[in-house]
Amino acid sequence: MHTAVPSRAGSPAGAAVKTTRVAVAGATGYTGQELLRILSRHPAVTITAATSSGAPSSSGPRTLPALAHIFAGAITPLDPASLAQDADVVFLALPDKAAAELAPMLVDAGVRVIDLSGAFRLRDQALRARWYPETRALPEGLAYGLTELERPSVEGARLVANPGCYPTATLLALRPLVSAGLIAPGADIVVDAKSGVSGAGKTPSERTHFSEVHGSVAAYSVFGHRHGAEIEQGAGCQVNFVPHLMPFDRGILSTIYVRVTPGTTEASLSAAYEGTYGGEPFVRLTGSALPEIKHVVHTNFCDIGWRVDASGRAVLVSVIDNLLKGASGQAVQNMNVMLGLDQATGLW
Amino acid sequence: MHTAVPSRAGSPAGAAVKTTRVAVAGATGYTGQELLRILSRHPAVTITAATSSGAPSSSGPRTLPALAHIFAGAITPLDPASLAQDADVVFLALPDKAAAELAPMLVDAGVRVIDLSGAFRLRDQALRARWYPETRALPEGLAYGLTELERPSVEGARLVANPGCYPTATLLALRPLVSAGLIAPGADIVVDAKSGVSGAGKTPSERTHFSEVHGSVAAYSVFGHRHGAEIEQGAGCQVNFVPHLMPFDRGILSTIYVRVTPGTTEASLSAAYEGTYGGEPFVRLTGSALPEIKHVVHTNFCDIGWRVDASGRAVLVSVIDNLLKGASGQAVQNMNVMLGLDQATGLW
Amino acid sequence: MHTAVPSRAGSPAGAAVKTTRVAVAGATGYTGQELLRILSRHPAVTITAATSSGAPSSSGPRTLPALAHIFAGAITPLDPASLAQDADVVFLALPDKAAAELAPMLVDAGVRVIDLSGAFRLRDQALRARWYPETRALPEGLAYGLTELERPSVEGARLVANPGCYPTATLLALRPLVSAGLIAPGADIVVDAKSGVSGAGKTPSERTHFSEVHGSVAAYSVFGHRHGAEIEQGAGCQVNFVPHLMPFDRGILSTIYVRVTPGTTEASLSAAYEGTYGGEPFVRLTGSALPEIKHVVHTNFCDIGWRVDASGRAVLVSVIDNLLKGASGQAVQNMNVMLGLDQATGLW
Amino acid sequence: MHTAVPSRAGSPAGAAVKTTRVAVAGATGYTGQELLRILSRHPAVTITAATSSGAPSSSGPRTLPALAHIFAGAITPLDPASLAQDADVVFLALPDKAAAELAPMLVDAGVRVIDLSGAFRLRDQALRARWYPETRALPEGLAYGLTELERPSVEGARLVANPGCYPTATLLALRPLVSAGLIAPGADIVVDAKSGVSGAGKTPSERTHFSEVHGSVAAYSVFGHRHGAEIEQGAGCQVNFVPHLMPFDRGILSTIYVRVTPGTTEASLSAAYEGTYGGEPFVRLTGSALPEIKHVVHTNFCDIGWRVDASGRAVLVSVIDNLLKGASGQAVQNMNVMLGLDQATGLW
Repeated sequence: MHTAVPSRAGSPAGAAVKTTRVAVAGATGYTGQELLRILSRHPAVTITAATSSGAPSSSGPRTLPALAHIFAGAITPLDPASLAQDADVVFLALPDKAAAELAPMLVDAGVRVIDLSGAFRLRDQALRARWYPETRALPEGLAYGLTELERPSVEGARLVANPGCYPTATLLALRPLVSAGLIAPGADIVVDAKSGVSGAGKTPSERTHFSEVHGSVAAYSVFGHRHGAEIEQGAGCQVNFVPHLMPFDRGILSTIYVRVTPGTTEASLSAAYEGTYGGEPFVRLTGSALPEIKHVVHTNFCDIGWRVDASGRAVLVSVIDNLLKGASGQAVQNMNVMLGLDQATGLW
Repeated sequence: MHTAVPSRAGSPAGAAVKTTRVAVAGATGYTGQELLRILSRHPAVTITAATSSGAPSSSGPRTLPALAHIFAGAITPLDPASLAQDADVVFLALPDKAAAELAPMLVDAGVRVIDLSGAFRLRDQALRARWYPETRALPEGLAYGLTELERPSVEGARLVANPGCYPTATLLALRPLVSAGLIAPGADIVVDAKSGVSGAGKTPSERTHFSEVHGSVAAYSVFGHRHGAEIEQGAGCQVNFVPHLMPFDRGILSTIYVRVTPGTTEASLSAAYEGTYGGEPFVRLTGSALPEIKHVVHTNFCDIGWRVDASGRAVLVSVIDNLLKGASGQAVQNMNVMLGLDQATGLW
Repeated sequence: MHTAVPSRAGSPAGAAVKTTRVAVAGATGYTGQELLRILSRHPAVTITAATSSGAPSSSGPRTLPALAHIFAGAITPLDPASLAQDADVVFLALPDKAAAELAPMLVDAGVRVIDLSGAFRLRDQALRARWYPETRALPEGLAYGLTELERPSVEGARLVANPGCYPTATLLALRPLVSAGLIAPGADIVVDAKSGVSGAGKTPSERTHFSEVHGSVAAYSVFGHRHGAEIEQGAGCQVNFVPHLMPFDRGILSTIYVRVTPGTTEASLSAAYEGTYGGEPFVRLTGSALPEIKHVVHTNFCDIGWRVDASGRAVLVSVIDNLLKGASGQAVQNMNVMLGLDQATGLW
Repeated sequence: MHTAVPSRAGSPAGAAVKTTRVAVAGATGYTGQELLRILSRHPAVTITAATSSGAPSSSGPRTLPALAHIFAGAITPLDPASLAQDADVVFLALPDKAAAELAPMLVDAGVRVIDLSGAFRLRDQALRARWYPETRALPEGLAYGLTELERPSVEGARLVANPGCYPTATLLALRPLVSAGLIAPGADIVVDAKSGVSGAGKTPSERTHFSEVHGSVAAYSVFGHRHGAEIEQGAGCQVNFVPHLMPFDRGILSTIYVRVTPGTTEASLSAAYEGTYGGEPFVRLTGSALPEIKHVVHTNFCDIGWRVDASGRAVLVSVIDNLLKGASGQAVQNMNVMLGLDQATGLW
């Protein structure tokens, strides 16, 4: 039982003209709910559909108590034809297989799509066949939505493959150094990533059972996590990526170990990062004061810090909220870019 | 080290006219930081001062890494004269003693004050002498800022005593039943409250040392917590209030045990709550589906649920984020009411 | 892969004569594993069988990594005939229904049984029909295994109904006051209990999914938890029992609100508790310094503290480890009593 | 207030002859309390003194509620002369500086000393001058107490430098591969370690304040943690060690990234580990099923797992309880070795 949702006159978005129609497919999962939360307050869009495969008949506030008084619409069964007709932009917060099937249909129907699954992230056919075999082909107009580093291609994209959470945290720290030629060639790159449990989604399992996670830490998918391939694609080199499941809900901290080229100092890294992110609202550079997860949870920020020693070893630390900058926040950031809005609209 | 703060064009507040000058005294504590976070995005105010007794020389982003790219101002030493001159509204996020001294000075200087300490919450002189002996007198124009229930007196107040976190969660659930005459007279009222650690503030202590709290629960201040007096003042009757320290950071869940008058049912309670909160944006009524802390953290909501059995026992459950609806969020809500704005402005 | 289990020469139990054969039915759940851990080190028993319905073919160390080098036996499918033949004492760590069927068969076969399920806890036929309808009748030689308070009947029992975790924590605090006549008749008794998640068992569910529990608290089963009936049976009066799910793994803290008879003081309660528990190794009385969960986790202790005010209100706080004193530890304590051993054998 | 401690007849240790007198200096810290807990049940020793600098007048059960009914002795002020006279073995759970001063005095007085501080861990004079400048010289009869790998020197030692928690977890995994020549020379070794907060001790600080740690992760002391030097000493090569503070109380998981020599497989590592630890009770080898912290908390085990890929990259994962195998448990293990007892005595 909920009271009627009151008028939203108090919202700063109240007076805006909401001209773009958006839909969320897979609205009841953790990333789906974050999308509803953000888009409900976004000054330039109206949510015209929110779908769920699992809850054909229930209404939004009933199954989504955290969204009462925020999102007042109904959760309806997924219907591709309706989505294509009722929305200008569709967010897919679906399993890889469902997204692999639905995205091309929507793109063909003229809808712009932002896909939070992994289905369209890997460009290499062989890698895709291994990690996402359900993806048959890459549509035209595809962009990889690591916003700060791929903005031009996102602007005109018809389909944005929203990056994985681990690749977002890792590549935002690693790429500026690769681009600046500061990484010593041939040396191993180690990415030791620590993630909260919400990254595993909403479906209960032994792995995510509270009593199995609380007070513990576990490495998993060593040499076998598909985000490893995505990181290597973005970094352009081999990376030894090991994710760890942590006893908290939200956030990723990625510790990255590299060798830098001779003569490279902390100041060299500062210059590379400042040159890349100087005007970016959502990347905060902390230098030698390393960032912590608590600084970024419930925000769209990525905080990056770094240390370099005299022998050329460097440690980079990057933190994000995996559900926001690592998923739904960056998805809306990409939508803003696609719509020609300021990229931070609705994300403060 | 931080990059320069980018322009705020992406904020929906960007275009608003910020005509009211506000200051935060005690800006580096947990409630102070929440105030800076909210007020930085508020469309109708400009932060003209943020003070801290502990950090006279450091700049904001340096000591407050979570606020980088959000609040770009300096943290300065507390100077009452400057505050009175530079701000129309001052928020006091200070210890009781400091607030007891500063608030009357500011009110006399014509500044409107919202005090998050306990200094001015108790109207009874004897109780105040026991719990807040540093408070010498109550200024004129004083309101108790439990917004939904005290809005008229907040509107014209010169000084708002912002309620304690436990009283906010408890009284929002209890008062409508008291007002409707649904509580059986003479029967004990038990309030078993569970709070996250952030309510204890930012100063390290053995009680709040991580290793002492993790995986544990502790009752404290039995028969001796000053919020008990505040709850009894608001409820108008004796209450057996026992707070418990919980192993999480944010949020309060208050479980309230009462006897209801003969014939009272869950529907009776629904009617009382709907009548009180029907149009309120920040109170969500969940009925017999009891609310949980995770639904309200990082929001200004108070969620209330209830159960009644055939023998007249009732259990009420109320949840809030102690730093928002229990402190800084409600403080801004009160400011909005004082300024004639929609009460939800800047709080979504 | 595990190394061979080394000889146990280092164990203080190494030289003991292990004459009693014990079996654990349901050995892979949380309470079953605790039983294996304790019984493997117990100086007077040998584990002759450990069964699981879910894992007919796998060996112990493989599926129970925490027990490698502790328990080296195999986990086998449940076979009632073998259990009756191979064991003198059988622990049932099974669902209620399975225990309700198996226990009478084993008792009839001459085996002594300690049942950790709820199947045989309620003596009242009507209550049992409501909460444990699968229990057809109570066998002769049945004892309720709240050891400190029921030792004489446990000594000669053929079947021990091991108490629930909430009743253990609550009744050990409440019963001495009831017995001493210190509880004011007619006044409500409120039991607000806080439990770790391991009490919900090992099967994943949405309720126990890490992301749903972390950083949150939830009241559940208000007016409808079967442990409420068990508490009322033990206390001999009506009790308003509300359990809460907490974000930690192990432990229960029960806060009990009662009215005491006129003239009753904290010293009165001390006398009642000292009189009941003065010689007990596993009950620790903390007086007005209230106990905390961290003091008892991973032990078989129950710590009890209390406060009384001048108006006759009393607050009792009792803490246990729900898997030990609230389940497997107390089960072994009961076995010790049945076997004529010191009750603490194997439990330090 | 506590009841009198009951007789310990139930303890399996009850009948043993306790011939060795032991003392704990620094008994109220986390490692000191663990020592008292273990030694109170140890069948071959009697605790003759437990000292604390901070609590000269209070008794044990009063300040150590978790040890009520376990340790009944008094906590007394530290007095070196008494220690030397009253104990055969002294455990030092003191700050480095205090241990650096006290240990030589005790050794000179003929007492055998097990030092849990870092004061005597580093053999290299220059390194010691940097990390432990208060240590003036290394006494004769000094052993480094990584028990499984240094047992012969521990047996006859007069002073055992008990290893650090990070070095224990890391070196038990790394050393067998170094000894077997399986590590590719010249390649970087990365040790990314995750530790619970109890490793930081009992003194409150901003770093260990609950609200700063809960739900977060932080890398710290990059290129500057003294355990890095201890790891390099034990490994015999340079290691890039970065510790991380984790939101739980007990346990360390060390993820170790190495390059192995050509042709080395997982089976090669298995052989090396089996050869080293085949008969060891406290090292459990899990192979490719990587260990997790929850399997070892509250035990003296070190669990080690490993993965190797076709390109010669290896990932080793090692877990311990930092207060037991990483401190007090290993200290007692070393005492057992020094006294000619089975090394596992009192540690199950």
